[in-house]
Amino acid sequence: MDAALLAPAAGLDAFLAEAASLLPPGALLRGEDCAPYQADASGCRGQAAAVLLPDSTETVSALLRAAARHRARLVPQGNRSGLVGGAVPDGSGRQAVLSLARMRRLREFDPLNRSAVAEAGLSLSELNRQLEPHGLWLPIDVGSDPATGGLVGANTGGSRLLRHGDARRNLLGLEVVLADGQGSVLDLTAPLRKNNAGIDLKQLFIGSGGALGVVTAASWDLKRLDASQLTLFAALPDREAALVALDAFEQHFGETLSAFEVMGAPALNATLRQFPALRHPLAGSVAGCYALVEIASAMPGLDALLQERAEALLASLHERGLILDAAFGQAERLWPLRDSLPLALAAAGTPLSFDVGLPRSRLPAFLSAAERWLTAEHPALRLYDFGHFGDGGCHLIVLLPRGMAAGYGPAKLAMLKSALYQLVADHGGGFSAEHGVGPLNAAFYRKFTCPAAQGLAAGLQRLLDPAAALGRHRYG
Amino acid sequence: MDAALLAPAAGLDAFLAEAASLLPPGALLRGEDCAPYQADASGCRGQAAAVLLPDSTETVSALLRAAARHRARLVPQGNRSGLVGGAVPDGSGRQAVLSLARMRRLREFDPLNRSAVAEAGLSLSELNRQLEPHGLWLPIDVGSDPATGGLVGANTGGSRLLRHGDARRNLLGLEVVLADGQGSVLDLTAPLRKNNAGIDLKQLFIGSGGALGVVTAASWDLKRLDASQLTLFAALPDREAALVALDAFEQHFGETLSAFEVMGAPALNATLRQFPALRHPLAGSVAGCYALVEIASAMPGLDALLQERAEALLASLHERGLILDAAFGQAERLWPLRDSLPLALAAAGTPLSFDVGLPRSRLPAFLSAAERWLTAEHPALRLYDFGHFGDGGCHLIVLLPRGMAAGYGPAKLAMLKSALYQLVADHGGGFSAEHGVGPLNAAFYRKFTCPAAQGLAAGLQRLLDPAAALGRHRYG
Repeated sequence: MDAALLAPAAGLDAFLAEAASLLPPGALLRGEDCAPYQADASGCRGQAAAVLLPDSTETVSALLRAAARHRARLVPQGNRSGLVGGAVPDGSGRQAVLSLARMRRLREFDPLNRSAVAEAGLSLSELNRQLEPHGLWLPIDVGSDPATGGLVGANTGGSRLLRHGDARRNLLGLEVVLADGQGSVLDLTAPLRKNNAGIDLKQLFIGSGGALGVVTAASWDLKRLDASQLTLFAALPDREAALVALDAFEQHFGETLSAFEVMGAPALNATLRQFPALRHPLAGSVAGCYALVEIASAMPGLDALLQERAEALLASLHERGLILDAAFGQAERLWPLRDSLPLALAAAGTPLSFDVGLPRSRLPAFLSAAERWLTAEHPALRLYDFGHFGDGGCHLIVLLPRGMAAGYGPAKLAMLKSALYQLVADHGGGFSAEHGVGPLNAAFYRKFTCPAAQGLAAGLQRLLDPAAALGRHRYG
Repeated sequence: MDAALLAPAAGLDAFLAEAASLLPPGALLRGEDCAPYQADASGCRGQAAAVLLPDSTETVSALLRAAARHRARLVPQGNRSGLVGGAVPDGSGRQAVLSLARMRRLREFDPLNRSAVAEAGLSLSELNRQLEPHGLWLPIDVGSDPATGGLVGANTGGSRLLRHGDARRNLLGLEVVLADGQGSVLDLTAPLRKNNAGIDLKQLFIGSGGALGVVTAASWDLKRLDASQLTLFAALPDREAALVALDAFEQHFGETLSAFEVMGAPALNATLRQFPALRHPLAGSVAGCYALVEIASAMPGLDALLQERAEALLASLHERGLILDAAFGQAERLWPLRDSLPLALAAAGTPLSFDVGLPRSRLPAFLSAAERWLTAEHPALRLYDFGHFGDGGCHLIVLLPRGMAAGYGPAKLAMLKSALYQLVADHGGGFSAEHGVGPLNAAFYRKFTCPAAQGLAAGLQRLLDPAAALGRHRYG
């Protein structure tokens, strides 16, 4: 890497003085006031030179021009719900946070086009609150409440990707301010579903964590709210059975299969131990794993039909020994069983989290191999899995029991992680399914990405951000 | 542009001699044998120095290395079903066609992952023929039969985009040979639904018409075949009513609304006049426009339910004066009414075709404005529209009656087209919805694309193809 890029921002003070003149009063924070903006949901923490809170695209553009002149470095930031440190400043105290938190207008809403143009700081929940009276929503479903700009930067997937796709699939357009020295504004917000009038430039900025340009607004393809729904919980002998059951559910329910989440029995049991208020929907069952299945449609009045068909399917799967037991339930009661595991384990020791994606057909073999490997190499540790079986997304937690964390220093932890990611790669998977790339997994990006791809990514970053002014992750 | 890029390929003969040594016998065509490879479905025609027919990625890579050494220029080509000349050589006789026609293996098929890795020359129809016994398909629906690599290059949309999305939405991965001098192979074919382990490089090559790299294989996200279906044909007073009816169909059928195609009455009448074998499904109706509506689901056994609900909805729309008449019918009978217009008009005069995309909410206003403009400026010409109302895609044909074509020379035609595209832009639309950019519309790309976007696209092309070795369209 060019040594100049590593040097601290030369004109930081001059930049901050100019930024203060560009921003509204109270929109440039220093010192203690920066504290809330220095960490993300993973706990990754840095030290900001300042926090800039522009309230318009024009101001973002002016800030990027000033940053280029003074060689200042900016880290774009949304709601800090990220999990790889991609939106927090480094520890140098020389990077400024460019928070989009004050850009939260819903600029356009076109119900007949089912589209909305929202500024990057508008949160997912607030967008959906405004859309609800019109029977529409942006159907990204995650445990946290990211800024909509953060959805773009992370290409958020979530639990209902099987039916609704990731952020990319729900995007019609973007507005991006470029780090080209001029702060050029790329207005690609036209809410068009068919538009192939040149290279689709917006794709570059989706999932690249704010490293190639500052996303200031997005044009979303909205969907109708679900009007029919069914949620059920099933006990299965093992993950091979879960794979066959998933296929059967797709054959019977087609595009209405909305989620097919699978967690290992140890994961469910650990959750129930930690949170006695949660009830086991199938108390007394002895299963290898459990599936939370959701079927939903925007077509109203299907509830009875869905239930009738699900009962028939469950009976047939039970007869084949693929499902041991099952119960219908309310979504609000069943999802917490799936969502509470990270918290439950955090109370039981030191959890090491993995967010990996595989061809779903290879999930059973991968999970067995991972369990075998951990038992052989780290017999005192336990593996918990819970994830988006239906789309191949898999969250793993390796738990270091209390008192053992001291024996696992940074080097040993890095080796453990690397070995597990190697198993993922051996099974055709990727080391970051939903969380993107940031300081927390940058080393694995370098290890598990083919050289041609790394070279091209670095070239793109040099093209779009020649002064290395933006973001946390350098692809070079 | 660098003058060197415009100079004819210096070492063309040396390149072809080396290419002959790299290719299997019979896989390098010269002279007359090139004829079938020199035109696309639009009739755009060029002159090839040769046609190269590699049968493996390794050979494509070797050809790109040789092309870089000899500064030869290649135009990647699939089934020549494109409509903007993007895959045919120019008239210089100095460009070689790089046809993917002999790379047509289905490399991998994973039914439990619902994915397939197909080489770029495998046609859409052949892929779907192989998938059908497994109850799966790639649900891109177009009148022609493109190579699957062509689907990628054009980001094909088609008539069922409303439900299934475009090629991009159905892609999990790509294999691309880069024009980086080394013929580096970017293997991004892992069939992962969740993969955010860095910049999603494959997105660059989707919809860029082979200009940034040679797509040699694609990894597709397959869907289950439809198991329930309903097709109906409706007469409506005008396009404003069509927009309200579209909204009502979405409210009642949600994600099962598969197509909502609208054609003006003149388009239907011209089709029926030309093809007497086609029968008017609503003979005697006097309507402003007609809608072909398809509702479908991969969930079996819904036919009766869909029909019952459609009848109720049609009755209520009829009561509100939004639908004048309607009939259910077989898909095989109704779709030809929609698909035969271009052929019908070609027999009636000289058709000028437009493929534009708008926010669907603005289609009625745009179409009225276009009609008013044509009547005022070119009273002897007629406008016909037929298109993908549900996704905002709109095919327009301006018909020059027989005998008038002589009065419309190239300059006058270009002005007419430009004025119509300006109306599209004024209504928030784009000048190429599905057909991409090629020699036939390159001038409109320069006119209707904002300078910042053109600059970035040109930079990307320089980064990925520094020697201007690939494709027909230069973004610079």
